[in-house]
Amino acid sequence: MNYTYLTNVSLEEARTSFLDMIADRCASLGEEQVPISEATGRVLSRPVYAAISAPHFHASAMDGIAMMARDGFGATETTPVTLSRYTVVDTGDPVPDDCDCVVMVEDIIDEGGVLKIAAPPVPWQNVRQIGEDICAGEMAFPSYTTMSPSAIGVLISCGITTVWVVKRARVAIIPTGDEIVAPKADPAPGEILEFNSSIFSGMLREWGCEPVVYPIIPDVLEDITRAVKQASEECDFVLLNAGSSAGREDYASAAIQAAGEVLLHGIAIRPGKPAILGRAGKAPVVGVPGYPVSGVIVMEELVRPGLSAIAHLPQKNKIMVEATLSRKVNSPLKYEEFIRVSLASVKGRLIATPLSKGASVISSFAKADGLMTVPQNVEGLEAGATVMVEALRPMNQIENTIAAIGSHDPLFDEVSNFINRRFPGLYLSSTHVGSMGGITAIKRGEAHVAGIHLLDEATGEYNLSYLRTHFPAGGVKLLRGVGRLQGFMVQKGNPLGIKGVEDLLKEGLRYVNRQRGAGTRILLDYLLQQKGIQADQIYGYEREEFTHLSVAAQIASGSADAGLGIYSAAASYGLDFIPVCVEQYDILMDETFTQSTLFDAFASIIRSKEFEERLTQLGGYTFTDTGKMVEYLD
Amino acid sequence: MNYTYLTNVSLEEARTSFLDMIADRCASLGEEQVPISEATGRVLSRPVYAAISAPHFHASAMDGIAMMARDGFGATETTPVTLSRYTVVDTGDPVPDDCDCVVMVEDIIDEGGVLKIAAPPVPWQNVRQIGEDICAGEMAFPSYTTMSPSAIGVLISCGITTVWVVKRARVAIIPTGDEIVAPKADPAPGEILEFNSSIFSGMLREWGCEPVVYPIIPDVLEDITRAVKQASEECDFVLLNAGSSAGREDYASAAIQAAGEVLLHGIAIRPGKPAILGRAGKAPVVGVPGYPVSGVIVMEELVRPGLSAIAHLPQKNKIMVEATLSRKVNSPLKYEEFIRVSLASVKGRLIATPLSKGASVISSFAKADGLMTVPQNVEGLEAGATVMVEALRPMNQIENTIAAIGSHDPLFDEVSNFINRRFPGLYLSSTHVGSMGGITAIKRGEAHVAGIHLLDEATGEYNLSYLRTHFPAGGVKLLRGVGRLQGFMVQKGNPLGIKGVEDLLKEGLRYVNRQRGAGTRILLDYLLQQKGIQADQIYGYEREEFTHLSVAAQIASGSADAGLGIYSAAASYGLDFIPVCVEQYDILMDETFTQSTLFDAFASIIRSKEFEERLTQLGGYTFTDTGKMVEYLD
Repeated sequence: MNYTYLTNVSLEEARTSFLDMIADRCASLGEEQVPISEATGRVLSRPVYAAISAPHFHASAMDGIAMMARDGFGATETTPVTLSRYTVVDTGDPVPDDCDCVVMVEDIIDEGGVLKIAAPPVPWQNVRQIGEDICAGEMAFPSYTTMSPSAIGVLISCGITTVWVVKRARVAIIPTGDEIVAPKADPAPGEILEFNSSIFSGMLREWGCEPVVYPIIPDVLEDITRAVKQASEECDFVLLNAGSSAGREDYASAAIQAAGEVLLHGIAIRPGKPAILGRAGKAPVVGVPGYPVSGVIVMEELVRPGLSAIAHLPQKNKIMVEATLSRKVNSPLKYEEFIRVSLASVKGRLIATPLSKGASVISSFAKADGLMTVPQNVEGLEAGATVMVEALRPMNQIENTIAAIGSHDPLFDEVSNFINRRFPGLYLSSTHVGSMGGITAIKRGEAHVAGIHLLDEATGEYNLSYLRTHFPAGGVKLLRGVGRLQGFMVQKGNPLGIKGVEDLLKEGLRYVNRQRGAGTRILLDYLLQQKGIQADQIYGYEREEFTHLSVAAQIASGSADAGLGIYSAAASYGLDFIPVCVEQYDILMDETFTQSTLFDAFASIIRSKEFEERLTQLGGYTFTDTGKMVEYLD
Repeated sequence: MNYTYLTNVSLEEARTSFLDMIADRCASLGEEQVPISEATGRVLSRPVYAAISAPHFHASAMDGIAMMARDGFGATETTPVTLSRYTVVDTGDPVPDDCDCVVMVEDIIDEGGVLKIAAPPVPWQNVRQIGEDICAGEMAFPSYTTMSPSAIGVLISCGITTVWVVKRARVAIIPTGDEIVAPKADPAPGEILEFNSSIFSGMLREWGCEPVVYPIIPDVLEDITRAVKQASEECDFVLLNAGSSAGREDYASAAIQAAGEVLLHGIAIRPGKPAILGRAGKAPVVGVPGYPVSGVIVMEELVRPGLSAIAHLPQKNKIMVEATLSRKVNSPLKYEEFIRVSLASVKGRLIATPLSKGASVISSFAKADGLMTVPQNVEGLEAGATVMVEALRPMNQIENTIAAIGSHDPLFDEVSNFINRRFPGLYLSSTHVGSMGGITAIKRGEAHVAGIHLLDEATGEYNLSYLRTHFPAGGVKLLRGVGRLQGFMVQKGNPLGIKGVEDLLKEGLRYVNRQRGAGTRILLDYLLQQKGIQADQIYGYEREEFTHLSVAAQIASGSADAGLGIYSAAASYGLDFIPVCVEQYDILMDETFTQSTLFDAFASIIRSKEFEERLTQLGGYTFTDTGKMVEYLD
């Protein structure tokens, strides 16, 4: 085992060394000439000077007559001047050489074909003079300007037909790994779908580069080295994906060293630590970690600056917003940590809620609204702290998003889909923290709505008594949701013969539970308590999943035998289902939210026929008073 | 003359009517299935549910051994448990079906091939469970989500290989006009280069649509009508460009009426008023005004919402920033006015300076940093007012831009070019308001630097006495610039035999002047005063241009005979030049600016050999103490 200890260089230092190395030892891209019609988005490699003026002739700005102003001097109401030399012009027509002004048609006195004016014209009135917009010889745009559509318009208007631009960077992406396979619908266990090159390609295209994806290379040092060498000759920049850690099959560092040089291996960021910076021939090489979130961060923080240094990429439009952190964030002193957050605009405050930290959880990136960092040498941030967040989504979109935080039910995904379809420009985001988490989120002003299904063990009633306890003074409203069939999901055919909660004690049975605070877990605890069963008698009680579907997925995979959850999740995986009860799943709302157009959209979906039809299709839902407001205070 | 009075409907009302008409009478786009590799940037037409879980197998999160946690229960330091059933795994390997945890290699005691553990494992420790990221059956993304690169990654990871997306909108662009010609380098007088379709095509592509540019149609009602009909059958949306006003050759409205219906003609916005909204067959039709700035505003404010209604375009990322208005803005009560502004970050304040209002001046759009509106029924805004501005450029770019406001000299364009080349991420913008305007801008904190060349008529000294008068308490610094050769620019061969200022009185001579406050105008006034000549004795004294090059352009066009300006402008147009004096052109700076990295970059350019070489190439510059700081206070 040739384990290499990685360095822990700060991001700033790593970037500076990398850029210095590129300046010293790598090749900048050349330039090429392109027709103006193909120049949008390209970066000028030279300044462009106007070839002709815009406009390129004196043009009439009005319908009227063109004349020499001198000829009209002295004209007054009482002594109008009769015109002998003039030309009739429409707007846009050239003003003849022997004219220097235009008199509007309204100001001309026509006496049987004899034209007079009753006021002296000012030279150059109503004329768009040559060069009003830009003059021949003037610098229209300096080097390294990115060509916007209107910039293209400017250049055409000043007689430019081709421009010199920086060549597009060709960026090699080399996926590696024995277990990696090309995208497909039915991977075998152990096969890992290769999606990083699709993510990186998309990012590179957005930056104006041309991705070149190489075939997947197995974990063989010589093969990887050969691929890096070849790519460094064929492309301007090389990304070697995965194998950048220090395990027994991580060859990226050795391959880059063999093909050129490793500048450094190991950066004080999380995720992204095992990144490698180096060079092969004239091409910068980055060993990009395999976990997709690490990869995206290394792409943004190191690959993009490196590419900019050789290809003058357009500057990133990084939009920073101030937000209030909803939860405490712990972070190691050793690293600068990148944390994906959801953003919600609630009661005039922007709330940032940290999402999963897992480097493998790419959906957390696709769904994130923002990205924040905890600097190196800072241990973490307290709930309520003011933080600066990079917005990853348009802020007007975030301001028009209903933030749902609470119990998980697929109905929120369905509402989100209906809202997108029926109310363009409005959105819904949902986060699963369980019913009690939802009550806390509403209390703290971190969400607009929360799904809750909380059983009062004393009365058997759902939700209302919890609201009386937590919101005795009001300030919230309850929208009646749906009845949900809860029960035990078990393997198809129910091989262990489970009939009720007491069967969870069966020898060899593996249970899968929901997280603390989830209404479904509270229901299990209630069922256990009724039968006098202790939690630690159940194998797997500590195995926590966050959604009904993930409980079902574990059972379907064969790694668990039973779990409590809703009917639609069991149906989705073809599992058997032993019904336990119908519970009331309602929607708790901040009172101010109920006066917003967001609420109107939300309520109209909940009350719609299509919504009921869709949930009926999923199965296990009942509809009594769905969409009605329920009073909980006497 | 069938003059139609246009309506003056508010933008909001116009947009609502247009969207209502589209909902009632136009066709939404259909959907198509595309491979996931081609889906970046596309908009989902259906929700996507995960086909498989991600990960789709239980994967080891560590190098170590996989085992059944049950088998290790009871293990302690003093009573380690010997393992009989286990599998060696690397990170990423599947965890075998009969295992439910992974023990790290570091925690395993190897006694000659017999493996023991000294602590009980927790079920599912060090395992990435099935569906950790997303579960089969879960809604990965709702309808109308725009596919980002990471969203593509998510979909591949959950077994999706194709997606249903909204078809790309095909948008017809029909340029019209007798005088309109395709882009070329050498248009004849009266020919107008057709660049609007290039601007609109670029915008449409940025929005994810497919522009279809039709041939230029002459101003013939029947031809335009036929083109609109044909386009409405071949495309999803039609843009009819120009002829939307109410002049004698403006046929757009009649053509749309003949091909379908005109919903309204005339909107209370400026620029953009003569826009037409209508329909032909199932396709929305917009009559887009011909002036390019009007066109761009109608594209953003009406075409984009209309297109979104049929094609579900991704939401615009509209970034609003708060700024201080540098100058008073007058605006008619009748219209909502769109004003392009430059933005500068000076001494911690963001300053918005209005640019040209001309609807024809497309360069003002290409160079604008922001766009603000003065609402209908508001007469204008005072200097110093706080305004909300839509940022058209990344804010980090604006914050790294040196704002130069003052006397015009092409050297600022050259500095801008050198800064872009040598200091990636730093920029310079310049606005021409004359030397006195520059002093005012620095005094008000609206600019970092100002070019000035102000002659003290009493002493013959440049600049210093003005600074003593305007900045007696300091707060500014003066960087020595260049000597500039000023003189009279005249037609090649000097046909009027001009030798000095007294020759401007010659019969028939047409002068072209600079604007009030320009140092060059002050110089002319000084020369006139020395000879006892009155301004109104000179024909054209009132004809004002804002730059040396535009003065030269007027003379070169034959519409003026003489103008005062710098040598390089005359040289650029091949004009004859009668030298008058060498003046001192210096750079006035706010004192705080001189402590910034922006200043360091600026000064290093001014002091560079290349800068001197480039100016020498332009001609008429001298270099004495260039780049030195000059004291003006005793």
